Order: sequence, then structure tokens, then C-alpha cells
Amino acid sequence: MSGSPLISRLIESLRCLPGVGPKSAQRMAYHLLQHNQLGASQLAHDLLEAIENIGHCEQCRTLSEKTLCDICSNQGRDQSVICIVESPADVQAVEQVAGYRGVYFVLMGHLSPLDGVGPVELGLDFLAKRLDTGNISELILATNPTVEGEATAHYIAEMAGSRSIKATRIAHGVPIGGELEYVNSTTLSHAFHGRIEL
Amino acid sequence: MSGSPLISRLIESLRCLPGVGPKSAQRMAYHLLQHNQLGASQLAHDLLEAIENIGHCEQCRTLSEKTLCDICSNQGRDQSVICIVESPADVQAVEQVAGYRGVYFVLMGHLSPLDGVGPVELGLDFLAKRLDTGNISELILATNPTVEGEATAHYIAEMAGSRSIKATRIAHGVPIGGELEYVNSTTLSHAFHGRIEL
Repeated sequence: MSGSPLISRLIESLRCLPGVGPKSAQRMAYHLLQHNQLGASQLAHDLLEAIENIGHCEQCRTLSEKTLCDICSNQGRDQSVICIVESPADVQAVEQVAGYRGVYFVLMGHLSPLDGVGPVELGLDFLAKRLDTGNISELILATNPTVEGEATAHYIAEMAGSRSIKATRIAHGVPIGGELEYVNSTTLSHAFHGRIEL
Repeated sequence: MSGSPLISRLIESLRCLPGVGPKSAQRMAYHLLQHNQLGASQLAHDLLEAIENIGHCEQCRTLSEKTLCDICSNQGRDQSVICIVESPADVQAVEQVAGYRGVYFVLMGHLSPLDGVGPVELGLDFLAKRLDTGNISELILATNPTVEGEATAHYIAEMAGSRSIKATRIAHGVPIGGELEYVNSTTLSHAFHGRIEL
């Protein structure tokens, strides 16, 4: 389609990026070749290096080039509080804002039996062993507020309950700066049920 | 920011893609590392191969891995009609729809004196030589309908005029399927000036 097989192949490859369709991929390919070959070769290099070197932290399962990620190996963090999230990007989101000083456990997904994702795929057997050590005081469940995320949170809350470990769920409600008028009804219903006394 | 220097670097590199900001770059990096390492390494490979091998067609200046691109070397195309476009993507756009059987000349930009882009940067000296051969019957000016694109079209039209070669400009007006109500006034004004008798 692009006349040149190499450009066609590059356009096709760029579509592996999330949110990139045929038109954007074409635009990206021509942009890189015409205006930013240096950036493109840097990107190629960094892609290869990341794929080569990045694996999973053996304690929290997040993406890391070390066997133990920076957060898990940081002695200044409270190793007895674990925040459970679905993805490494969620770890970044919490790190950027919250002043949270505990550690994480990254599920790399959520329970989804139809897709063959059960407790083992999420590393929950591994989490169970960590709970069994007796050094954990609280699990903060920060999975996404979707049906699957909620189900996953409940499953893990039960794991914690059976070991008498406190499990908490982050609050869901009206976002700060949002207007009631534009908040969807499920969120508003959550906000009412989760109201707190002033 | 991402905890891992390799991931941070990959996120930074992804921002060389047009239209990709910090949030999308982060999403892309995590997506590739978590879900599509094969696609990512294919992309890296194709980027390097394209940068390595793709240069410019020596006749029409479009991006091509051959010295003469497929269109210029195609004996079935009318070499006496040249369509002038700003970029290789424009060549593709015309090829996909128009049933055009002539060849192209790709400016790789438009006249923009403030950015140091003059006739030489657009290869117009080279185009002039081609016009001087006497084998050219028509130039179709298909630069973008922007101020710079129009200026470039006029400049080239004068080059053609001084050699008594016909220069035509593609029609601008209300897009097919568009509604008058939503067309901007400049376009509508163009459409009125360019009206044709039925």
C-alpha cells in the first residue's frame, strides 16, 4: 500500500502500539523517517534493551530489571503493609500521589475465569505464602472498580480474613473537582453508601 | 518516575512518536512489556531496517529503498504529467483513490523562508531541470490548501509558466458528503469562486 515494502512493514509493526490504527501508524512511520531518524533508532534500541532486561520483581511481581525492585528493596518502606494493584502502571499512579510508605503486590491482571485467569495466574498462591509469614498487618485492595476488579478484591479479602489480617478497600466516590451532575449513577450510589460522618 | 530506569527511558523514547504524550507513552511501554514483547521486538527490528535502507527516490524524492521508486520506474505511468505534493503520505493518499496515471514530485515540505526552507530545500532546482527537458506536458499542483502550500503552488506555477508548461491546481471546495452548514467560510468562499457550469 505504501509503495515501499519496508515502509509497509514498519506501518504494520507500529500497530502493535495500543490505540494506534492504520492512519496513525502511517503518520508515525512517515514522521519518523522524514523528521526523526535519530529518535527512531533510539526507540528501537530502548525497546530491545527493555525487552532483553526487564523481568518481574520476585517479591511484588512488578516489571523491573532487578530481581528485587527498588520499592521492595527499600528498607525505609513499611514491609508489613501491602497495596494490591492490577498493573505496574497502577504502582506508578499510587507512587506519584499518595505519600504511601508500604509496599505493593502486582497481580498483572484480575480474576477472569473465562479467559483462563485464576488465582495462580495472578500469583495469589505466592501472596498467600507471604501472608502466612505472619509479618503482614494490612492489605490495601486497590484493584480497579470494575466487576472483575471487585471480584478479585473480594477473593483476596477472604484470603486475608481467613488469616485474621486486616484488608481494606480504597474509597470510591465522586472525584475531587468533579460535579455531581456529571458523575455516573453507580459512582454516586457508591459515594452515598460510603459516606462518612463529619 | 517509573522506578525502573530502562522503563523510564523507553517511555521517553516513545514520545518521539507524533501525538504521543507522557501518559500514552507510559501506557504503550507497559502494554508492550506486559502483553506484546514479540510485537515490540518486531517493531524495533523494522525501525532499524527502515532507517538503514530507506532513502529518497532520485527522480521524485519520495521515501523509497530503491534509487528509483516503483512509480517512477513504472513504464505504464505517464511520465509527462507530474503531480506535485508535499509529502510521501500525500502520494499514498492520491494513489489510493484517484486513478491517477502520471508520476509525482515530492517537495518534502513547503516554502517557509522563516524556517530556512527555500526553493533549493524543496528540490525545485532539480524540478526545473526536469521541466527543461521538454518532456513534461502538465504539472498538477496538489500542495496543501494552507498559506504556505498556496505560496509554494504559486511559485511552482510560475516556474511552469515561464517554460510554457500547463500548471493546474486541484479543486478545493465543499467535501463530498459534507454539509454546507458545517463547512468553514474560507472553504465555502473557495467553492463559490471555483464554481463550474453544468
